[in-house]
Amino acid sequence: MIGVYCNRTKIGESWFRALAEEFGEDQVDLYPFTYPDAIEFIACWKAPHRLLQTLPNLKVIQSLGAGVDHIFDRDNAVEQAMIARIIDPQLSVDMYEFALATILADMKRLTFYRDQQKEKQWKERRYSTIPNKVVSILGLGVIGSIVAQKLSVLGFQVKGWSRSEKKIDGVECFSGEADLTHMLSQTDYLLNLLPLTNDTRGFLNQSLFEKMKKGSYLINLGRGPHLVDEDLLTALDQEHLSGACLDVFHEEPLDKEHSFWEHPKVFMTPHIASITNIETARKQVFENIRRMREGRELLNVVSMERGY
Amino acid sequence: MIGVYCNRTKIGESWFRALAEEFGEDQVDLYPFTYPDAIEFIACWKAPHRLLQTLPNLKVIQSLGAGVDHIFDRDNAVEQAMIARIIDPQLSVDMYEFALATILADMKRLTFYRDQQKEKQWKERRYSTIPNKVVSILGLGVIGSIVAQKLSVLGFQVKGWSRSEKKIDGVECFSGEADLTHMLSQTDYLLNLLPLTNDTRGFLNQSLFEKMKKGSYLINLGRGPHLVDEDLLTALDQEHLSGACLDVFHEEPLDKEHSFWEHPKVFMTPHIASITNIETARKQVFENIRRMREGRELLNVVSMERGY
Repeated sequence: MIGVYCNRTKIGESWFRALAEEFGEDQVDLYPFTYPDAIEFIACWKAPHRLLQTLPNLKVIQSLGAGVDHIFDRDNAVEQAMIARIIDPQLSVDMYEFALATILADMKRLTFYRDQQKEKQWKERRYSTIPNKVVSILGLGVIGSIVAQKLSVLGFQVKGWSRSEKKIDGVECFSGEADLTHMLSQTDYLLNLLPLTNDTRGFLNQSLFEKMKKGSYLINLGRGPHLVDEDLLTALDQEHLSGACLDVFHEEPLDKEHSFWEHPKVFMTPHIASITNIETARKQVFENIRRMREGRELLNVVSMERGY
Repeated sequence: MIGVYCNRTKIGESWFRALAEEFGEDQVDLYPFTYPDAIEFIACWKAPHRLLQTLPNLKVIQSLGAGVDHIFDRDNAVEQAMIARIIDPQLSVDMYEFALATILADMKRLTFYRDQQKEKQWKERRYSTIPNKVVSILGLGVIGSIVAQKLSVLGFQVKGWSRSEKKIDGVECFSGEADLTHMLSQTDYLLNLLPLTNDTRGFLNQSLFEKMKKGSYLINLGRGPHLVDEDLLTALDQEHLSGACLDVFHEEPLDKEHSFWEHPKVFMTPHIASITNIETARKQVFENIRRMREGRELLNVVSMERGY
């Protein structure tokens, strides 16, 4: 049987309907589960702690998004199950569009103007232009590579850094510690798209910020735990970084007491940069269910070793 | 002699320095003028009412921007002088970048998120994507054509309307009343880049808004008097238009009592979409001074009949 869990109820229901239509309603169990023993395949997003361990016959954990850190984080004891994720070109394109929107919003000072409108102020600020700006991307996986390439086509000077060496048309690619230092020193906009693993947790920290150019801007579209929040606040308050756009947080929704909400140099969005679209992503989930049943190799399997 | 007037003192001083360096300080008179009778060429932006008429030997009025409405508006009695304007590819590119920034800001709901951050709210809103959106441009002159073409290359569905028929790669071009109605009914983002003339004053009015698709969005980067402010407020309050981004106003800075400041669906910027860059624009002004002195035809002359 196919189990469905999503931390956002409406999206879970949409997946339930899509799967029931394809495989028959008697084949799909929407959380809270009626037949936990029968579930072999779970389509899930941010399942509660230990939920996966209550499914004794689980063979496949299908993430309903590009990330799988929500699976490794909470339930790393489900050793007999394969993990698969969504790889959907639309997710990459959406990420590119959102990254572009936030970079341009800063270049053209749109959040500054929005704030001053509320105060009925009329002040002009210099804007900057695309060909003069260097955008560097941390993480050149499926999403990062497409974002990098598209920003380069648009006219930005684009650099990228990843664990393993990459080659992308129009993008200056780096890997390794020395290369990272070099890249950061030339960067105007640093865009984080790393996967969240034990190696990348806390990657955006004081030591990294110190290597960044004075006045540069951070955009975190990866995961909240990539960032050491206190270190960012220090870098902003010392005017080393000019600002930050944050779409992801350690805790979501973010606690109302957190300093990010009211910080004048932080622009927050509620984890909406790129949302899995059921219409475009459903086919690969359907296909994985068929492959599991037929004992064939799954699509978009996650490496247990690398964690992504 | 060369006179220099700019309503923004610092910019006037920069033009004075650039011209003095090229032609000698004794050849340039910065407002308030010491030698009004000697001025044959004036480089100006928003000169005070009747200033130009106090220059009896004026031969050339050189606008320091792309627009000349500031000259026709205030001083249309200087009949013996030619009028020239700046045509600088950088102005068009800047306009394109700003238009793109505001379109994406609306598509990705950035002003909504900025506002809700101030209220410590965490709500997600659907975003839209580039290939699904129709951007229509009013005015396909030097600037409008470049903006249209570049937005089309980026993946938007782009339409354009102008007084005379145009042909632009990748852009569906219209002209005439019936075509305008047809275009407006299919438009998601309407971008005004018309020149301000007696024909286009008040062009953005109730009758035009009624022809626009429900939920569409207005971006005015032309001139304040293109827009009938009250008609826009009505269209927004009746929820026919979803919002508006306004960079230009009847009066600048805008009066603090004006309803636009506090209207939740209006996003205001202080006439900064595209600013003439002295570095890139100076050459054509220098060239026009030489041409005037040698009795040759000027660059970028304005048609008195059309008014642009």
